[in-house]
Amino acid sequence: MNIDFINPFIDAVSDVLITMAVLQCNPEKAVSKQEFEDQGDVIQGDVTGIVGMVGDQFKGFVAISFTAPVALGIAERMLGEELETIDETITDLVGELTSMIAGGAKLRLSEQNCEFGMATPLVVVGDCHRIFLSVKGGSSVIPFSTEVGDFFIEMYFGPVN
Amino acid sequence: MNIDFINPFIDAVSDVLITMAVLQCNPEKAVSKQEFEDQGDVIQGDVTGIVGMVGDQFKGFVAISFTAPVALGIAERMLGEELETIDETITDLVGELTSMIAGGAKLRLSEQNCEFGMATPLVVVGDCHRIFLSVKGGSSVIPFSTEVGDFFIEMYFGPVN
Repeated sequence: MNIDFINPFIDAVSDVLITMAVLQCNPEKAVSKQEFEDQGDVIQGDVTGIVGMVGDQFKGFVAISFTAPVALGIAERMLGEELETIDETITDLVGELTSMIAGGAKLRLSEQNCEFGMATPLVVVGDCHRIFLSVKGGSSVIPFSTEVGDFFIEMYFGPVN
Repeated sequence: MNIDFINPFIDAVSDVLITMAVLQCNPEKAVSKQEFEDQGDVIQGDVTGIVGMVGDQFKGFVAISFTAPVALGIAERMLGEELETIDETITDLVGELTSMIAGGAKLRLSEQNCEFGMATPLVVVGDCHRIFLSVKGGSSVIPFSTEVGDFFIEMYFGPVN
């Protein structure tokens, strides 16, 4: 996948998490999901924010997957209180973060003359769920490390039809 | 949510499953997810196909949630062989069905002068996952019953900003 699509999301994640949770994120190298899985790695999220994106030339989605401890850790930093379970407070926060990250990336892509409309974000909750994509070329994975733990962005952009 | 958005999806589901799996689907009454959950019902999918949709005036998503036995039952009818586990064959099929259903609904919506672009479908796999939406008004649920079991469509469409 074109690097032009990846950097806007890396920048948006870093911006949103430093602003909203005073959390420094260190992005690792983006790799294709195939390459990621060939290394024996697997993304199993407990909470995942997903949003579809549609432009004139390209369409795709971005999914931000957190384990429960990382989602709780980020939420604690945002709310300043201790949290123990993945409840509506967490799903609302993950939905909000997903929306802000996709919105930030959309703005950056627009500056590259690449316009996208954003679908409505949704949040999937369930122990160790995984995401699959049956599109030629497959998706890209960007791992992020933070002091509350690691999380992953999975994204795909391809031509419209 | 406007009934104009719901019927195209009901018709597309019925059309796609009778065509692809020779499976008759009986839609039940669409209800708001709030109402659905107030009745004590909950959608817990093992395999869910999700696709975001973006139009000039409205945006949203549709999610089609199957339990493992229902996903396997539908896949068996499509492939004519017995299947036991949720593997790549199933995720590919659910991705394909989701794409066809959203595409069929998009065509029907277009006939109502409501144009949408479709984001890239993805498939979530994980025991008993749930979907959350933090948007005012909330989503709608359409239960479908079939001879291989019940499944659910959850959808949301709202104004673009």
